[in-house]
Amino acid sequence: MKIALAQFNPTVGDFAGNSARILSLAAQAKQRGADLAVFSELCLCGYFPQDLLERPAFIERNQQELKELAGKIPLPSIVGYAGRVTSGNGRGKSIANKAALLCGGRVAFEQIKMLLPTYDVFDESRYFQPADHQSVYAFHEEQLGITVCEDIWNDKNFWANQLYDRDPVAEIVGKGSTVLLNISGSPYTLDKRALRFEMLRTIAQKHTRPVIYVNQVGGDDSLIFDGASMALTAEGNLAAQAAAFEEDIVLFDTATQKGEIHEQPQEEIAYAYRALITGTRDYVRKCGFQKVLVGLSGGVDSAVVASIAVASLGAENVLGVSMPGPFSSQGSKDDAVKLAKNLGIRFISIPITQVFESYKQALVPAFENRPVDVAEENIQARIRGNYLMAISNKFGSMVLSTGNKSELAVGYCTLYGDMAGGLAVISDVPKLMVYELARWINREREVIPRSTIEKAPSAELRPNQKDEDSLPPYEVLDRILKAYIEEVKTPQEIADHYGFDLKLVRDIALLVDRNEYKRKQAAPGLKITSRAFGFGRPFPIAQKFIP
Amino acid sequence: MKIALAQFNPTVGDFAGNSARILSLAAQAKQRGADLAVFSELCLCGYFPQDLLERPAFIERNQQELKELAGKIPLPSIVGYAGRVTSGNGRGKSIANKAALLCGGRVAFEQIKMLLPTYDVFDESRYFQPADHQSVYAFHEEQLGITVCEDIWNDKNFWANQLYDRDPVAEIVGKGSTVLLNISGSPYTLDKRALRFEMLRTIAQKHTRPVIYVNQVGGDDSLIFDGASMALTAEGNLAAQAAAFEEDIVLFDTATQKGEIHEQPQEEIAYAYRALITGTRDYVRKCGFQKVLVGLSGGVDSAVVASIAVASLGAENVLGVSMPGPFSSQGSKDDAVKLAKNLGIRFISIPITQVFESYKQALVPAFENRPVDVAEENIQARIRGNYLMAISNKFGSMVLSTGNKSELAVGYCTLYGDMAGGLAVISDVPKLMVYELARWINREREVIPRSTIEKAPSAELRPNQKDEDSLPPYEVLDRILKAYIEEVKTPQEIADHYGFDLKLVRDIALLVDRNEYKRKQAAPGLKITSRAFGFGRPFPIAQKFIP
Repeated sequence: MKIALAQFNPTVGDFAGNSARILSLAAQAKQRGADLAVFSELCLCGYFPQDLLERPAFIERNQQELKELAGKIPLPSIVGYAGRVTSGNGRGKSIANKAALLCGGRVAFEQIKMLLPTYDVFDESRYFQPADHQSVYAFHEEQLGITVCEDIWNDKNFWANQLYDRDPVAEIVGKGSTVLLNISGSPYTLDKRALRFEMLRTIAQKHTRPVIYVNQVGGDDSLIFDGASMALTAEGNLAAQAAAFEEDIVLFDTATQKGEIHEQPQEEIAYAYRALITGTRDYVRKCGFQKVLVGLSGGVDSAVVASIAVASLGAENVLGVSMPGPFSSQGSKDDAVKLAKNLGIRFISIPITQVFESYKQALVPAFENRPVDVAEENIQARIRGNYLMAISNKFGSMVLSTGNKSELAVGYCTLYGDMAGGLAVISDVPKLMVYELARWINREREVIPRSTIEKAPSAELRPNQKDEDSLPPYEVLDRILKAYIEEVKTPQEIADHYGFDLKLVRDIALLVDRNEYKRKQAAPGLKITSRAFGFGRPFPIAQKFIP
Repeated sequence: MKIALAQFNPTVGDFAGNSARILSLAAQAKQRGADLAVFSELCLCGYFPQDLLERPAFIERNQQELKELAGKIPLPSIVGYAGRVTSGNGRGKSIANKAALLCGGRVAFEQIKMLLPTYDVFDESRYFQPADHQSVYAFHEEQLGITVCEDIWNDKNFWANQLYDRDPVAEIVGKGSTVLLNISGSPYTLDKRALRFEMLRTIAQKHTRPVIYVNQVGGDDSLIFDGASMALTAEGNLAAQAAAFEEDIVLFDTATQKGEIHEQPQEEIAYAYRALITGTRDYVRKCGFQKVLVGLSGGVDSAVVASIAVASLGAENVLGVSMPGPFSSQGSKDDAVKLAKNLGIRFISIPITQVFESYKQALVPAFENRPVDVAEENIQARIRGNYLMAISNKFGSMVLSTGNKSELAVGYCTLYGDMAGGLAVISDVPKLMVYELARWINREREVIPRSTIEKAPSAELRPNQKDEDSLPPYEVLDRILKAYIEEVKTPQEIADHYGFDLKLVRDIALLVDRNEYKRKQAAPGLKITSRAFGFGRPFPIAQKFIP
């Protein structure tokens, strides 16, 4: 049997658009000789609809659209959707995350997702009733065993600690499945590729069954899906692989255990760069925008964001805005100009100095002769935020904000100032990785001025300010932050492991916790690490725990 | 047996402070002749710690503090905390939401919460392993049956639809429990009091057992807990009741079925007003602030917020800031002055006109002769946001933002402008209820100027602007919003039910959905309705569902 792994880029709630893509890809798959097309998790409504799932009309639309699709689809296909369930006792949730096999004009078979993740960005128990059993379905010469995303992430040979009591894969194998199909909406994170492959390989080898994994592609708010769907032979070898971050179809033949392999970027930094480009493009486009603007400070953060914007949307859709203030260095101003020229984007400069002066004058009575402090720094940052939003409002373009994860973690950023914007492109990228991205962007020619990369980072909000006046060097800070935020280590463990000063680590940890209030009002950011700030890390503000 | 219902106001993560309160209240209860003190859910660490629960050090601190408390507590007490569990197979979550009976210097008995809510603001499946069984504990002449919060919300006689398969209350009664104790952290919402009482009454009557319900009091970020702990006789009559929104102890005697009843505000609007005062006071104080500032526009929203601030923190801790602009009416300016005088708060006026002029001049090249539009309106709002934040930064006081739920719902507010602030006091209060609060505040004397209440609402950001230029009358809008957001009705159902124009309802529903991007960056707001915007209503931004 020839199976087409069909990965596409759905939009949440765009039933007509998603259906049209499914029909078009199924036609392509048929033309190429496939017997079955497999699509990704919840692809009919788009993954992940969140509280849209609470609306009966949204579920009704899922049901209706599936029925229509079943009548029209030119090839037997497995499609993910959100559908109604009725449990025997009328208790529990009323909907489930389902895989439907459309065949012969109807829904021939359905499998409900059994394992519902409730960690990091996932809260599927909020919405779905889990499956109470797994079934297999005889199709052509095979016995299809279908699982949905998390269902395949609980193998007891692969994981030291299992999260769930049941293993749906073992259950379908026990029922005679000859081919293991998994439909996923599994967000990209750094270094997940290797883990995912090893896990799938373990499952194939353990059960001596081919494994077919079909993953969503594209951006959905903060989440980025890399696609990279694949088929593994019963020996655990890679037999088919779709492209990363692009819609794609590849075929796998269960009889010959052979398939097509499409190229993917090899270097992790190249893969991450593609992820950020995908996430930016899809957020901007799916929100209905064509154009974006970026404040260009001459620093590396805004340079990387502008480069990603150009790669995502085209130079003609990106405006660079320089907003020099009283403490902006000539070097920074020159670097901003040079960057815009290298990227081929439109560029304007709107100084903030006069407006800043008028604020200071207006606030004289309110400030009661208090000395100059962080208040004046924030005023400058907020004038810039106001400029960018004014241009955004005037021309209907989206502001991309430019803060990185390291500064967001410790609160080295201004609410409503540099934090203002529709999308925080690199808010989950640690500062050292921003430099890595800059070097990757410059791999063939100097796009980001070398001086931008080489100079000491500075907010330039007071005379001779440097990031290192307030923060440890990023080589130290980024290690502490990763260990504290992603690995959930204690300050003592971090200090011991890296040989850092315990007080320093404790101070940083406390800064992270105490700055949650800023992050609660941050623009949505693209998630690329195992733990991003935002909805996948709910954290109290008014709390007094000393880490 | 005499049971003390001991409700107090914990702070998340403040183990030393929470323990000290528990010890002090247990001593009071002992002095008053109690045999047992009952405290609320997770009171040792404060409800609700969110992802602090993922930190092993936070759980370790719970365990340690409980042990120390057991050694020191002067009276047998039931205390809620987050503790470790080990399941037989090592799977599932590693912690549970527990009630511990401290007695004789040790933890004599523990009951784990069985029903874990995953809806609205609750996501306890993310953290906790549920109980697999209920037990009872013989204490004095009683068999204690202990449940935790949600455990008591699944009675099949009370609810038409049960969320869960099991009923922990029925299970402890089956095991011989003679008294039903429930420890809760159950957030206040409008009209919940009556429902809660009826539910507890149903349970008491059905099982013919006294019911003792102990609830947290105080604010925790967006959530407000009203306390109002109570004991019901086996016949379902109210026998003991603690105060609302205050720390309190009341006693109930299981032998005589008698107890103390403390007064609560009767009117729902008075109760809601107390809720908002409590939430504001605790958010500000628990964040470490003493003082707040409020932008006074002369409108009813800011007048109500300033009144709540004064009632929460004292007039001496509230600064009113008038920021008149080119379109501010003389009436509004006068009303702001009058309000500040009536409240006895400090007042300053900082006009925005000069700063606005300097923005317009600076943006001439960027705006390319485009006509004046919403961009210029937002600039004014954002100058005001910048002023307030500058004063906040300069003096270490917190900005209270003043937007109401109706405008937040439809996006009739400016990101980084009037939305700026540390706490959005009335962001879950519909506009018509803001007027109700204003009239309640004025019940004895004119605090809020009558002209503020009587004039047509306006943002005053362009000449002769009125809210009704852009929005339907609030009598219509608020009904649509409640039905759409809280009751999750479709536009068709709403139009049919109220006889509203379907197109109007659809337009409003779409406005609500499409403005999620603004709410994602809103300040935390106090929840008082059954469904507030924010973390209890996760909703996608880049989506295309037509409601």
